[in-house]
Amino acid sequence: MSKVLGKSSECSVARALTVLNDPWTVLIVREALIAKATRFGQFRDALGIAPNILTKRLRHVVAEGLMERRTYQAPGARTRDEYVLTESGRALSIVIASLADWGRKYLARPDSHSPLFVDARTGVPARLLFADAEGTAHHPADLIAERAPDAELAR
Amino acid sequence: MSKVLGKSSECSVARALTVLNDPWTVLIVREALIAKATRFGQFRDALGIAPNILTKRLRHVVAEGLMERRTYQAPGARTRDEYVLTESGRALSIVIASLADWGRKYLARPDSHSPLFVDARTGVPARLLFADAEGTAHHPADLIAERAPDAELAR
Repeated sequence: MSKVLGKSSECSVARALTVLNDPWTVLIVREALIAKATRFGQFRDALGIAPNILTKRLRHVVAEGLMERRTYQAPGARTRDEYVLTESGRALSIVIASLADWGRKYLARPDSHSPLFVDARTGVPARLLFADAEGTAHHPADLIAERAPDAELAR
Repeated sequence: MSKVLGKSSECSVARALTVLNDPWTVLIVREALIAKATRFGQFRDALGIAPNILTKRLRHVVAEGLMERRTYQAPGARTRDEYVLTESGRALSIVIASLADWGRKYLARPDSHSPLFVDARTGVPARLLFADAEGTAHHPADLIAERAPDAELAR
C-alpha cells in the first residue's frame, strides 16, 4: 500500500492508513477495546466475519504491531492463541473515538451503538476535542490545517 | 461494504469506515483541508494518484456527501469542475488529526510532514485530546471503552 500511495507516504496520515488498510483491522481493534475480545472465536462471533478473512486480518494486526499473539493453556485443555493489544494498538482509541464521533453525527441511525470512552475509575465519559497547549478548547470550524514537520510534533 | 461488514454496521465506527473505504478517500479530504485543493489536477499532482483512480474516488466522495461538485468558468475559458468540502467533509478534520497524531507517534519517519490544525485567527496549534464535560483532560491510558447508544450522544 505504501507503494500504491506513492509520494503521499511522506505523511503520517498516509502511513497510518497503510496499517489501517481495511475496515476489519479497525473493527478488530474496536472489539478488543470495547469487549476485551482476545480469542479468535470472540472476534468471529462479535464481528460476523468469515474465518478465513479473520485469520488474515489477525495476522496483519500482529505483523503491524497492533496486537501480540500469546499462547495459553488452561489446565487439561489444549493450547490456544490469544491476541492482546499492544501500546500502539491501545493508542488507536483516538482513531476509533474520532470515527465514532463523526459517524454518530453524520451517519446517524436509530438504535445503533458505538464506542464511548469513559474514565476507568469514575465512569465519567470523555470525548475527543481540539485544545491548545493552554487547555483551551477550539471548535473545529475555527481551525485551518497546515503541513508541519512530524519530528517537532511527535509526543 | 456495509453488506460485507454485516452485523458490525450497527456501529457508527463501522458506518464511518464504509464511507472512508479507501486510503485515497481520506487523502483527498486531507489535501482539500491542507492545500485547499479543489481541482482534479491539484489532487492528481499532490497525491501522485492515477487519473482513473482519482476519477472514481472523487465520484465516491461526492456520492457520500463529503464534497460537492461545482462547475465554474473563468472568462474566456472552458468550464471546469471543482470539488468543495461539505460540512461533513470538513468535520473529518477530527479523523485526519487522529490519524496524524497516531502515525506521528508510532510510525515515525524523519523528514515527514503531516497535517497540524491551528486556530485560523491566531495560528495557535490545537491537538486532539480526550476531555470530560467539565473540560478536564483524560489520558487515553486511563480510559476504558463501552458501547453506548448513538442516539444519546450525537452532537
